Amino acid sequence: MSKLKTYILFFVLMVSSIAYSQSHPKLILTKKGVAEIRAQLNQLPMLQTSVQMAVRFVGDEMEKGIDVPLPKDMAGGYTHNCHKKNYLALQNAGVLFQITQDEKYAVFVRDMLMQYAELYPTLGLHPANRSYAPGKIFWQNLNDANWLVYASQAYDCVYDWLSSKERKKLEKDLFRPFADHLSVDSPQFYNRVHNHSTWGNAAVGMIGLVMNDQELIDRAFYGLKSDNIKADQKDNDGGLIKMPGQGQAGFFAQLDHLFSPDGYYTEGPYYQRYAMYPFVMFAEAIENCKPEVKIFEYRDSLLVKAVQTLLNLTDVNGLFFPINDAQKGMSYLSRELVSSVNIVYHFGGEDAGLLAVAEQQGQVMLDDTGLSVAKAIKEGKKTNYIKRSANYKDGASGTEGALGILRAGEGDKEICLVMKNTSQGMGHGHFDKLSFSLYDYMGEVLPDYGCARYVNIEQKFGGGYLPENNTWAKQTVAHNTLVVNGISHFGGSTDTGNEFHSDPFVFDATNKAIQIVSAKELNAYPGVEMHRTLALLADDRFEKPLLLDIFRATSDIENQYELPYHFVGQLLSANYEYVQAKELVPMGDSHGYQHLRLEAEGQAKGNNAKFTWFAKDHFYSITSYVSPEDKLQLVRSGANDPNFNLRSEPAFIIKKNPQKNAVFVSIVEAHGKYDRVTEFADNAFSSISKIDLLLNTNAYTAISFQDKNKNEWILILANKDAGKESQHELQINGADYKWSGAFYFVQSK
Amino acid sequence: MSKLKTYILFFVLMVSSIAYSQSHPKLILTKKGVAEIRAQLNQLPMLQTSVQMAVRFVGDEMEKGIDVPLPKDMAGGYTHNCHKKNYLALQNAGVLFQITQDEKYAVFVRDMLMQYAELYPTLGLHPANRSYAPGKIFWQNLNDANWLVYASQAYDCVYDWLSSKERKKLEKDLFRPFADHLSVDSPQFYNRVHNHSTWGNAAVGMIGLVMNDQELIDRAFYGLKSDNIKADQKDNDGGLIKMPGQGQAGFFAQLDHLFSPDGYYTEGPYYQRYAMYPFVMFAEAIENCKPEVKIFEYRDSLLVKAVQTLLNLTDVNGLFFPINDAQKGMSYLSRELVSSVNIVYHFGGEDAGLLAVAEQQGQVMLDDTGLSVAKAIKEGKKTNYIKRSANYKDGASGTEGALGILRAGEGDKEICLVMKNTSQGMGHGHFDKLSFSLYDYMGEVLPDYGCARYVNIEQKFGGGYLPENNTWAKQTVAHNTLVVNGISHFGGSTDTGNEFHSDPFVFDATNKAIQIVSAKELNAYPGVEMHRTLALLADDRFEKPLLLDIFRATSDIENQYELPYHFVGQLLSANYEYVQAKELVPMGDSHGYQHLRLEAEGQAKGNNAKFTWFAKDHFYSITSYVSPEDKLQLVRSGANDPNFNLRSEPAFIIKKNPQKNAVFVSIVEAHGKYDRVTEFADNAFSSISKIDLLLNTNAYTAISFQDKNKNEWILILANKDAGKESQHELQINGADYKWSGAFYFVQSK
Repeated sequence: MSKLKTYILFFVLMVSSIAYSQSHPKLILTKKGVAEIRAQLNQLPMLQTSVQMAVRFVGDEMEKGIDVPLPKDMAGGYTHNCHKKNYLALQNAGVLFQITQDEKYAVFVRDMLMQYAELYPTLGLHPANRSYAPGKIFWQNLNDANWLVYASQAYDCVYDWLSSKERKKLEKDLFRPFADHLSVDSPQFYNRVHNHSTWGNAAVGMIGLVMNDQELIDRAFYGLKSDNIKADQKDNDGGLIKMPGQGQAGFFAQLDHLFSPDGYYTEGPYYQRYAMYPFVMFAEAIENCKPEVKIFEYRDSLLVKAVQTLLNLTDVNGLFFPINDAQKGMSYLSRELVSSVNIVYHFGGEDAGLLAVAEQQGQVMLDDTGLSVAKAIKEGKKTNYIKRSANYKDGASGTEGALGILRAGEGDKEICLVMKNTSQGMGHGHFDKLSFSLYDYMGEVLPDYGCARYVNIEQKFGGGYLPENNTWAKQTVAHNTLVVNGISHFGGSTDTGNEFHSDPFVFDATNKAIQIVSAKELNAYPGVEMHRTLALLADDRFEKPLLLDIFRATSDIENQYELPYHFVGQLLSANYEYVQAKELVPMGDSHGYQHLRLEAEGQAKGNNAKFTWFAKDHFYSITSYVSPEDKLQLVRSGANDPNFNLRSEPAFIIKKNPQKNAVFVSIVEAHGKYDRVTEFADNAFSSISKIDLLLNTNAYTAISFQDKNKNEWILILANKDAGKESQHELQINGADYKWSGAFYFVQSK
Repeated sequence: MSKLKTYILFFVLMVSSIAYSQSHPKLILTKKGVAEIRAQLNQLPMLQTSVQMAVRFVGDEMEKGIDVPLPKDMAGGYTHNCHKKNYLALQNAGVLFQITQDEKYAVFVRDMLMQYAELYPTLGLHPANRSYAPGKIFWQNLNDANWLVYASQAYDCVYDWLSSKERKKLEKDLFRPFADHLSVDSPQFYNRVHNHSTWGNAAVGMIGLVMNDQELIDRAFYGLKSDNIKADQKDNDGGLIKMPGQGQAGFFAQLDHLFSPDGYYTEGPYYQRYAMYPFVMFAEAIENCKPEVKIFEYRDSLLVKAVQTLLNLTDVNGLFFPINDAQKGMSYLSRELVSSVNIVYHFGGEDAGLLAVAEQQGQVMLDDTGLSVAKAIKEGKKTNYIKRSANYKDGASGTEGALGILRAGEGDKEICLVMKNTSQGMGHGHFDKLSFSLYDYMGEVLPDYGCARYVNIEQKFGGGYLPENNTWAKQTVAHNTLVVNGISHFGGSTDTGNEFHSDPFVFDATNKAIQIVSAKELNAYPGVEMHRTLALLADDRFEKPLLLDIFRATSDIENQYELPYHFVGQLLSANYEYVQAKELVPMGDSHGYQHLRLEAEGQAKGNNAKFTWFAKDHFYSITSYVSPEDKLQLVRSGANDPNFNLRSEPAFIIKKNPQKNAVFVSIVEAHGKYDRVTEFADNAFSSISKIDLLLNTNAYTAISFQDKNKNEWILILANKDAGKESQHELQINGADYKWSGAFYFVQSK
């Protein structure tokens, strides 16, 4: 948004705020919504279920009695969990008071808030002293902001029911100082363009809207006017507090800068999921209290796009692709996505596909948006939610790389590829330019490790990031991408990584027979140009779509190139001889190699190395075009891991002898399965009989492959000119090839 | 059964066979059954589903066309799988001909059988030459017997439809020589008391019944009269062909000797499942053709008991406990169990609980028994199938040890313990006296490794037993039981193991608060008496039932005692310091240690060592009473495994310094879970604060343990006298204890 537009918006808000309603609830629930929910509850099963869940949850908490302990523990510990449960209970009880009109819920909210109002003024910073921005209730302000986002909803629900004396006490002793601590007292937390600050902005803005406190609302929208943050100041994750050139802060700055125009969030889907809640909740509150802002239309309906993008960044089970720092297992069943889906359905055009996701979520928000969803489902409006191939541009302007998703096949033949050609992703970014992960209809095939962290599991470093997150999970060798000279991309420096992004080269998902994504990376290793092309090939002669991987590295000097494939499961067989290592020792001292042990090494006799593995009773094979000198390594994570923080997982590494230019060509097949009850093994063998590298020049790379029945396919890539209209002519082994566009793919016999 | 009874039965059969019906089908399907199935098919969904499955399967095979290839491959290979599919297609097609009366099925059966009749006379022994008893169609006679068990059903179904000339050809060129090859040509296969021979007996008997060939029927019932098997002759698995003292052979000998009076099959449930099919199918055929035998009443309704026992030997998912050589994942959904459940429901008293299993199986037999089940389900007769605690005696007379099962808790609190106090289990037996495995509501917690084999997966040694089955899976250290001086039980000799069994000492599942199983093993290590007591304790103060493990070893000389606990998942934390090994090397040269690597070692500062692990998002802890000198080891399988045949799995080993008498006391807790979507960790910490050894004498062992709230429990075991009425008096730390029976358990504060 231009600055002029922002200023105009600012004045509109100033004026319109005069007319803004003083009657509660108005934030997430509205008076009109409450009336409709009460009227229709008996006819809407999803809504009933959700009310029952809330009744059960709050009932349990009420039975246990209110507990507002003196803050002490880190994440996962008693006081942490207790305060976390408290804000969920507060919010649920507030909503239940409105829906059931049973005063016991209002009493519960009041009594708990009053205990917080007694406690809060007595608190200094949280004693754990481990955060760059400590909270008072929790070890980090981020969690305190969570508390206020939920508690402000509870307060809104009981606002009219409370006496003005009670309101005054709560606002004076609790809410206002709470909002101030999150903002003016913690500029390094509040005035960033970052998910932490989004929570801060939403918390301050939501309580501001409830209290009708224009100062807080302005602070939420536009940040602090001054903050004195130093240029090199960093957070706990090593991320810079202020990105160079950042001039703005507050909620609109988050909307302007945190998402790409495609609604992709640079840290990746795990954090996008976490970040969505304050975005959509605060947006709903703004829409309810200040509809003139048209927040859901802001920046070409950015929030609607962001939710749709996020839902598409999931595997077949709805689990988010765990790129960058992401704990695996998080899915669109999460609380944050219930709100996102409901709110975007209601305010974002009623996409009937979203109803299928809502149905899987099994619950709805207890507000106008949940009512809409429950009604639409009841009325049978649901359609399938179709996930698709897409190339999501990264960066606020969409110019900092992209995340490419290819999907092919249906049902149990589904194959999904994620290729990471993005920018660094800030402090939570991993060093894995041009990396990919592969999924089938059950889940991970060639996975991304995700983060090294057990969120909220106290035994593991209080639930925080483990040292191995930096030393292993972020390092290049922990990913399915090229390592040059044993060093991680950008030397493992986040600051350097933040300066660059990969360059998308081709993305074409128009032809079901070959969908292709290709990108280059020029900065991860100065002097080395990396160019990777990944394609999903769908042909009925193969059980499922194939993944074709062509990775070129070019340099003026000799380098050692290693390409790891991290897999799930157990080696079944290889077509080359390998020798198991007698002693397992760390493979290096740094860049992640210190956590790997070489388990076996071999070399191919010819130009093709194949190995087949077995995972979750399914068969997979990778066939690679190699040189007989290439070392084929089987490695496993777990070395230098004194606290057993790492999962013990295998990888296959192709290691080339030092050379200037290298090209790796591989085909990955998911093929066949085993039934443990019938003990039948179907299609247990790879169908690829041969891969050939026909040509590899600066301008073109051509490969061919054959199946067992001697059918042959040829793919030629134009390495320099990917123009759709560009004409190419080439002779290979005496045959003439002529085509227009970035690549040429044909079945030749 | 006494010999006299056997002779009387023999004469009854001789006489009655004169009157026996010549009309087909009569073996598994009957004319009456066919008429009823045809009449009621439309009303019975389970039956319809099963017919549709058969129609689809046979339809696919008919479309592909008949393929009767020259035998060549091992298990998992093309010709093996093809012939296996053929016999299933034959049997299904035969049944479909009867039920649909569509001649195309009869034509298919005839044409395929004719191709076999052309091929069979040309065949020598299977070229693989890997079996102690090679087949002609398959690499081992066992598979050939399978073929005939199924093909005889198909033949029975089309018998009346075929011309007498066709029948003559089939019987002369195929069935009779086939039956002869299985029996007179292969006495080492046929005249054993063994599951292989059961298949042989059933195959010969079933084709004999169809052909009305009394010689074959007699041969099936009573075996070959002479066989010239040498006393030390062994099969491929190292099992003796003839057990010492074995005088009989044939089907009745299998019934007399293979099962214990409780219906437990000495090889374990995986093989019992495999063995059940010929037992129940041949029994059904006998019941249909010769009802006067009253085969289902034979030996106090042995077959009925055997099926009920087998169903109870499963975890919460219906997976068989994988003791001895067992591939994990096999369950009561298998084809063999569909027949067993249907047949035992129909002929064995119509236990309504079986209908719940049948419903899970989702299909029924296409015969009278399947009709019964489908009707009963349709009529709503189904009740829950309740699995229970039980002590299954082993050995033909029930005097050779026992397999103890304890179950406590319900729903997601269910805990199930399997304790192996049996005899060796013949050639497929493992060396793990007094071992246990533990299950919860999701499946394995402390698992048994099962066999080292990938059944029918050709890449892994043709699907046969891997070398690591002997060197790892059978060895003691691969199990949850005591290893003395680094040597496996019985020195790893099956012959020695076959001479002995463990001695059950206590089994008491009458009190839900404490269920207990205890046994002694005097022969695994000459000079060492081992005595283990396992108890499931159910107390509402713990989230789920606890497992208490007290393992005593007594000897006149000093030994090195090591007790492994194999677990699933990832170490979370330990209450003692440990150091990760820098170099991982094999822990030994033999007895399984060559496959283990020591990953970390530590020692407790006090008398309690605790570690907590994390598996499938659930928390588990083991707390052990130890000496500060005890070495606490974390190990992992995978060393000396040149073909990556082993799964990489962790174990925790308590290793004591050399001593004469040792006692290990541990409590295993399943406690709490983690939700990856809400990121809440519930009850992530162990509730046990302390375990004490109060007393350990030849006569008594007394332990106490406390929870976090200082509640204390005391358990005293009488080590010598387990009599239910025996009176005991004992003073411990000044307190007097008086009780009757094998143990005393009390909450003391």
